Amino acid sequence: MEECSSIEESVASVIEEAKEVQDAVSSHISKASSDEEPLRQRVRAVDSRIHSLRSSLDSLVSTKQIPPSLAVKLDEDLQRARCIIVDGDASSLLPGHAQGSFLRMFLGPINVRASRKDVQLKVKEEYNSYRDRTALLFLLFPATLLILRSWIWSGCLPTFPVQMYQAWLLFLYTGLALRENILRVNGSDIRPWWIYHHYCAMVMALVSLTWEIKGQPDCAKKQRGVQLFLQWAMMQGVAMLLQNRYQRQRLYTRIALGKAKRMDVVWGETAGVDGQLWLLCPILFTLQGFEAYVGLLLLRTAVVGVVSEWQVIFCGVLLVLMAVGNFANTVQTLMAKSRFKAKMRRSKSKQRLN
Amino acid sequence: MEECSSIEESVASVIEEAKEVQDAVSSHISKASSDEEPLRQRVRAVDSRIHSLRSSLDSLVSTKQIPPSLAVKLDEDLQRARCIIVDGDASSLLPGHAQGSFLRMFLGPINVRASRKDVQLKVKEEYNSYRDRTALLFLLFPATLLILRSWIWSGCLPTFPVQMYQAWLLFLYTGLALRENILRVNGSDIRPWWIYHHYCAMVMALVSLTWEIKGQPDCAKKQRGVQLFLQWAMMQGVAMLLQNRYQRQRLYTRIALGKAKRMDVVWGETAGVDGQLWLLCPILFTLQGFEAYVGLLLLRTAVVGVVSEWQVIFCGVLLVLMAVGNFANTVQTLMAKSRFKAKMRRSKSKQRLN
Repeated sequence: MEECSSIEESVASVIEEAKEVQDAVSSHISKASSDEEPLRQRVRAVDSRIHSLRSSLDSLVSTKQIPPSLAVKLDEDLQRARCIIVDGDASSLLPGHAQGSFLRMFLGPINVRASRKDVQLKVKEEYNSYRDRTALLFLLFPATLLILRSWIWSGCLPTFPVQMYQAWLLFLYTGLALRENILRVNGSDIRPWWIYHHYCAMVMALVSLTWEIKGQPDCAKKQRGVQLFLQWAMMQGVAMLLQNRYQRQRLYTRIALGKAKRMDVVWGETAGVDGQLWLLCPILFTLQGFEAYVGLLLLRTAVVGVVSEWQVIFCGVLLVLMAVGNFANTVQTLMAKSRFKAKMRRSKSKQRLN
Repeated sequence: MEECSSIEESVASVIEEAKEVQDAVSSHISKASSDEEPLRQRVRAVDSRIHSLRSSLDSLVSTKQIPPSLAVKLDEDLQRARCIIVDGDASSLLPGHAQGSFLRMFLGPINVRASRKDVQLKVKEEYNSYRDRTALLFLLFPATLLILRSWIWSGCLPTFPVQMYQAWLLFLYTGLALRENILRVNGSDIRPWWIYHHYCAMVMALVSLTWEIKGQPDCAKKQRGVQLFLQWAMMQGVAMLLQNRYQRQRLYTRIALGKAKRMDVVWGETAGVDGQLWLLCPILFTLQGFEAYVGLLLLRTAVVGVVSEWQVIFCGVLLVLMAVGNFANTVQTLMAKSRFKAKMRRSKSKQRLN
């Protein structure tokens, strides 16, 4: 009976402890969030002041009330102030992009925003290494299929491995679209088009799964579309590898400067990688041209009547749309970069004249 | 020039402000996490004390060193202590289930754990309403296909609507599997089997997309499997609606008691919903029997040789496996419930005898 009373006491005390620790945790959580509120307001106030100073600087420049050398200096200073906010822990208190309906559709209302900047950078780093791994598969998977096609399968692809490849594409694009949405919520400035592009690719992978490619009667004719698609996928693998290297260098610069405590980032961003950009651009444009070509070819086979399934027309239209969108967005990105450089160059030459 | 010096000053001050607010946010974040550490240790200590007290109580009961009435009371007290920890904000500091590879595969290393209990409950509530919405579609989609089949399509399903349905199933099961993994990370005690079950269902939806059901030569024979599958899906819709009602009542009890500040939960959990359990069980077992029957039928058509595609054999085997797993897990859940009740009853009758 002695043991009974001792366990009775212990149980009573553990209930008390549970209540106490629960109250302590509750008050800790509410205190932390009430401490956060004034900080949140300060961060937003600084952010909006930077924005309004930038627009008054722009109006001074356009009415030529300010010497160019000073304008360049102030422009750089404002960029630095913005980097301090956006690249530091403070960014977790800025309103990010709202969690879109794609994430809500798959995940429900869970919050995927990281509260610390180093976690956000880790997410971005993992995204890049995911892209690296998949880019290799992107190259090897279709290459294997094409090699086996001419060596073993005597010019006629069997259904199963192609469907495996299409299922893998569906999985891959779903993962990329989810990750990119998560990056956007965490403050990444990824262009919305690249996310829409992956939605289109998801739909296309799904549709191509239902697409019958069995070889009767004329295998070469019927599989012409699939074959071109595989070649295009191989090219895309190469482009992805190059793009990844380019973007990774940008990120490393950011992290390195972030570790150097102050985040003077934007200048370093394009320095040293311009050479790669001139290798990347022709490849990207060739890729987009080839994408449109494959799409038009699919549409032609549907019109001429070799293959009359709806999947052919659908994939054809989708490929052409994706090629046009990719082209427009690549050009816009390049124009934004060159406009920025031209502005810098013009200001510097004026500075020298003065 | 006056405007120039004023904007110069403003820019200099905004940089200072940005640095200050960034430092303030950094120190706030590190202070909050260092304040959290001792609380985390206290919560874990209480949790492990509850566990060790439960095992000493069990050994006292098995060696009959404790009067049954006291054992019942202490058992209830320990359950209450555990509920205070698990149902309150303190649960966010307990180590949850690790984020599994399924989530990492789709989302990367982002943390999906909610730090507040009310957010966790909101996630669960949204999961239930998602299940409600999909259960209705689960009933209506196959029902429409079957009705149109006999009214308009004269006994032979066209490919496109069936593939739409299969693509919807794939999307649905992916969403469910992701949400259930997120719930598990947030401390839900969902049985792992139900998540594996949804992985199997995802694979089956994917495989069935590649499965050709076009009607030549004998539509009724070739589509027998699809037809049975649609009937089974309708039954599952009804079962899902009932299950949702049952689980929702459990959750409401929890939230209501949680709002009443102290979380005396476990008693309320099964009270009042036993009646529904006796309606639910026969339906669940019938469903599982039918699932196995559809699977075996598919295997027979493959063996007899009406349809010889690999998808038929694969789906057949998968359906049988899922039926067996569902049955085993339902029985285990019921046995756990009845064991608990029997223990309670036995203790109470002994109490009366004493």
